[in-house]
Amino acid sequence: MVKLVCTLGTSPGGIFETLGNLRKGNYEAENPIPVNIKEVYVIRTSDKAVDIAWKLVKAIFACCGEKDVTISDISLQITDITSNSDYELFMKEVSSRISKGDYVDFTGGRKAMSVAAAIAAKELNAHIVTTIIPQNEYNEIAQRAKGLKEEDIIAGGNRDCRVDFCSLTSKNARTILLQ
Amino acid sequence: MVKLVCTLGTSPGGIFETLGNLRKGNYEAENPIPVNIKEVYVIRTSDKAVDIAWKLVKAIFACCGEKDVTISDISLQITDITSNSDYELFMKEVSSRISKGDYVDFTGGRKAMSVAAAIAAKELNAHIVTTIIPQNEYNEIAQRAKGLKEEDIIAGGNRDCRVDFCSLTSKNARTILLQ
Repeated sequence: MVKLVCTLGTSPGGIFETLGNLRKGNYEAENPIPVNIKEVYVIRTSDKAVDIAWKLVKAIFACCGEKDVTISDISLQITDITSNSDYELFMKEVSSRISKGDYVDFTGGRKAMSVAAAIAAKELNAHIVTTIIPQNEYNEIAQRAKGLKEEDIIAGGNRDCRVDFCSLTSKNARTILLQ
Repeated sequence: MVKLVCTLGTSPGGIFETLGNLRKGNYEAENPIPVNIKEVYVIRTSDKAVDIAWKLVKAIFACCGEKDVTISDISLQITDITSNSDYELFMKEVSSRISKGDYVDFTGGRKAMSVAAAIAAKELNAHIVTTIIPQNEYNEIAQRAKGLKEEDIIAGGNRDCRVDFCSLTSKNARTILLQ
């Protein structure tokens, strides 16, 4: 079964949308067919703001659909990529998680994370995808996310959907298959 | 002779610093030796803000050193990467500019541009580098750049250095060789 492997930064932006678009066959490619994905790996640093973004992703998945999907948190013991060894650690981790035919979404996180994930995908014969959220919508979502309390976000992850987490997903996200 | 091939976005951030650091051997790698680079290719979109960033890069090179270097502007007829065909155009262009042993800096521009440049570098046996500018310094430089008039920036590119363009370069930029 193919997986979706995503990088994550300080915004939840795109992971839920990428998954939905791939599953519906709603993405830009020569022959966009629905992809049967039931497993998502989120690879990220352990920076505080990224921790919150992960909790938001978890709450969005718990409260807004795609409920038959398993979503796994892969948190590295670094808070940023600022050295060659950070990059190598990230590359090693992301490479170990990708199998042939998987979908790798590099939309979130630092550029060096995106580059590592895309190179790993290329080498392992996985697909490379990205999701574009219009800038104004992205900013609105970021503003809404900022207004949430951490305890409500954690509750959301446990399917206690006391906040409208679905307003944090983009209605106009476009997913592009690059390879 | 090896070249430096750089992606550029809306900020001039990093190109001048990457070149200086490579030439001085002042970068993070197992065995950082000075790299004799005399040619820089800047690959970018033709978005208005990116045009300005290019003019700033040109003015910085004209007014702040590295004067024995030829810097070439490669401007694509797209304003952003929002589709598979934009990505392929960018990939084709960047691949055609990279030779074995060149240095490819993916620091500037959209993530999809960085990914395309890094994948091309990997395939063509070029080096991959990135330069990290501390966030506060980056923001200060962006603020200073915003305050400049376009006519002064253009004059700078013609070596009429009526503005302190060197204040737009980072004193604490760190360049990392990733491959």
